[in-house]
Amino acid sequence: MFDNPIFIPGPTNVPERVRRAMNVPMEDQRSPNFPKLTLPIFEDLKRVFKTETGKVFLYPGSGTGAWEAAVTNTLSPGDKVLISRFGQFSHLWGDLLVRHGMDVIALDVEWGEGVPLEDYARILNEDSNHEIKGVFACQNETATGVTSDIAGVRKALDDAGHPAMLYVDGVSSIGSIDFRMDEWGVDLAVSGSQKGFMMPTGLAVLGVSQKAIEASESATCNRCFFSFDDMIKTNKDGYFPYTPATTLLYGLRESLDMIFEEGLENVFARHHRMAEGVRRAVIDGWGLKLAATEPKWYSDTVSAIYVPEGFDAVAVLRIAYERYGLSYGAGLSKVAGKVFRIGHLGRISEIQLLGGIAGAEMAMRDIGIDVQAGSGVAAASEYYRQTAAPIAIAAE
Amino acid sequence: MFDNPIFIPGPTNVPERVRRAMNVPMEDQRSPNFPKLTLPIFEDLKRVFKTETGKVFLYPGSGTGAWEAAVTNTLSPGDKVLISRFGQFSHLWGDLLVRHGMDVIALDVEWGEGVPLEDYARILNEDSNHEIKGVFACQNETATGVTSDIAGVRKALDDAGHPAMLYVDGVSSIGSIDFRMDEWGVDLAVSGSQKGFMMPTGLAVLGVSQKAIEASESATCNRCFFSFDDMIKTNKDGYFPYTPATTLLYGLRESLDMIFEEGLENVFARHHRMAEGVRRAVIDGWGLKLAATEPKWYSDTVSAIYVPEGFDAVAVLRIAYERYGLSYGAGLSKVAGKVFRIGHLGRISEIQLLGGIAGAEMAMRDIGIDVQAGSGVAAASEYYRQTAAPIAIAAE
Repeated sequence: MFDNPIFIPGPTNVPERVRRAMNVPMEDQRSPNFPKLTLPIFEDLKRVFKTETGKVFLYPGSGTGAWEAAVTNTLSPGDKVLISRFGQFSHLWGDLLVRHGMDVIALDVEWGEGVPLEDYARILNEDSNHEIKGVFACQNETATGVTSDIAGVRKALDDAGHPAMLYVDGVSSIGSIDFRMDEWGVDLAVSGSQKGFMMPTGLAVLGVSQKAIEASESATCNRCFFSFDDMIKTNKDGYFPYTPATTLLYGLRESLDMIFEEGLENVFARHHRMAEGVRRAVIDGWGLKLAATEPKWYSDTVSAIYVPEGFDAVAVLRIAYERYGLSYGAGLSKVAGKVFRIGHLGRISEIQLLGGIAGAEMAMRDIGIDVQAGSGVAAASEYYRQTAAPIAIAAE
Repeated sequence: MFDNPIFIPGPTNVPERVRRAMNVPMEDQRSPNFPKLTLPIFEDLKRVFKTETGKVFLYPGSGTGAWEAAVTNTLSPGDKVLISRFGQFSHLWGDLLVRHGMDVIALDVEWGEGVPLEDYARILNEDSNHEIKGVFACQNETATGVTSDIAGVRKALDDAGHPAMLYVDGVSSIGSIDFRMDEWGVDLAVSGSQKGFMMPTGLAVLGVSQKAIEASESATCNRCFFSFDDMIKTNKDGYFPYTPATTLLYGLRESLDMIFEEGLENVFARHHRMAEGVRRAVIDGWGLKLAATEPKWYSDTVSAIYVPEGFDAVAVLRIAYERYGLSYGAGLSKVAGKVFRIGHLGRISEIQLLGGIAGAEMAMRDIGIDVQAGSGVAAASEYYRQTAAPIAIAAE
């Protein structure tokens, strides 16, 4: 198998710098020097989450772990919560809420759309007794490539004068798409190491507001591994309540350095540009449809692409993998067999993406889908060429 | 800082082979090839746990995560459980039980001793209504270097005809000290990646019996991230309920290969030999006392060493770290300042250990402790020499 990049929406391609940074011997996580590694990481994570007043916790775990940490620390069994479901991951978060005993109001939205702001506004307005304790929103639904308007959710809460906490799944957005924890009044911000942080899987990353920390003092869900209290007590001195995933902390140090060297806003702009090229390939080049039904939902980290009626997206994936050594994201649950997904987040270049677009073209043509050879690459590459950083090009 | 090995009782020194094995690019954890990595790992872990009928689950997490997984999947709030506490880690597990709402019978035992078999036998015999649902035992208390007799706990259960499940913390024993999940009827066997598995921190490893799986079907503790049910459904095909820590899986593949190339029983014998050398240094060389009060409690993975009355073990640790670049384990909680610990588990050689023993001698002498220079090294090295594999040595 050749060393092709992967085009799944996470884990993303780990930069060589980060891989080298993680190749370290083990050390004592209780040593006097350990906080020199950890304390600056905690501060820099706050810059990525755009919070000055909150905290960011790191657990050995996955995004699912961060979901669970957010819920079990701040809510009590029987609490009423509001969530909307429009893809595999918003569904799974809703399922986790049920399993932890919450009284869940789940709004089922067409897959391809995002958080229904008017419905949220209406329900929050009607909830004059403030029975709803938590409002849940998936900023970027990885299954469909849909980005929702979190500022809009905050506005719905504020307009209703509603005190519920705001929980945001930013697993496939934070570090790639603008996220403003303080400005949007996000109380729990869920992320993981394997997306915008350009790291291997293994770290759950959770932003927590002061309001959430206060809520944790009276919330009665049982928890221990994910306890905020234990984290707060030990993190303040640069330590952890149990052995942390040390190699990943070194990788995170390096990936944070890369993010700030490039500039966080530049990282977002790059993600937008990479994504827009892929969308040009899909829509203008291939004449296919994205799962995201309208431009306002387009995700800058992942595009879910419908294969034409009568074709099986699983066959595209299988051929791409077996014949060309390429991994795209599969369609999950309701859209299994209908879509395949191109991840364009983390450290990925236009040149790598053009290879991925070309591979998708080949696999689609192999099963008889009528896309023109080179059409996606042409559409994307023209866009990339037009938007590349200007440098002097000799006329002759 | 020189590249000294660490002498803490985990994380242990990661062998070069394992470090190289983990330096891999990310891949699709849903690809058709992924089970070729994972399914043999599941089988080989069962060989390490010595179970044919049980399963071994891997979570992104730590030992604490595996503790929580064991408890929340198999018990219900209010269940009566029996635990004995004789060190930081058995205390913390007991604390976790309280936090998850269990009705905990906690037997406080002198630190330096292990599971009190007679007390367990008596309590289990008296519990004729079988109200106790879980019996908890720490096979190796890392804080004091005490190994308990798990076969003895099983015998106490059997003699009483008691059906409670048996929960064993084997974090710092499994893969280093003999552990027999099936033979001893262990239902939940807790471990982590960073001890006998010679890996970085980041994986919770949990052995689960069929009886435990059946119990999980009616246990009512809320859980999602650690759910056995989700693991069983996805593991059977070589996948996971959420993104696994892929790099660590590659490291685990390599470390399992190393364990089986050496032979599991040889690994145990090597640990015993390394440990015995350290004990000779402590007792015969330095004339100091181990925290373990009797030879039957001696741990083959970690030795906790009392500094003489009037001296501060923290000073030994500080000097060792700052002056000689050495990390030993600190005394925790009740024995803070009184003991320091030498970890001798995972991939560590007699030569490395002799360096660690020499460094401890120097640091102790630096603060005025009356140990003779070279005395520990002499006692340990004579033992290592006598027990080294026989090879031809020229007479002249």
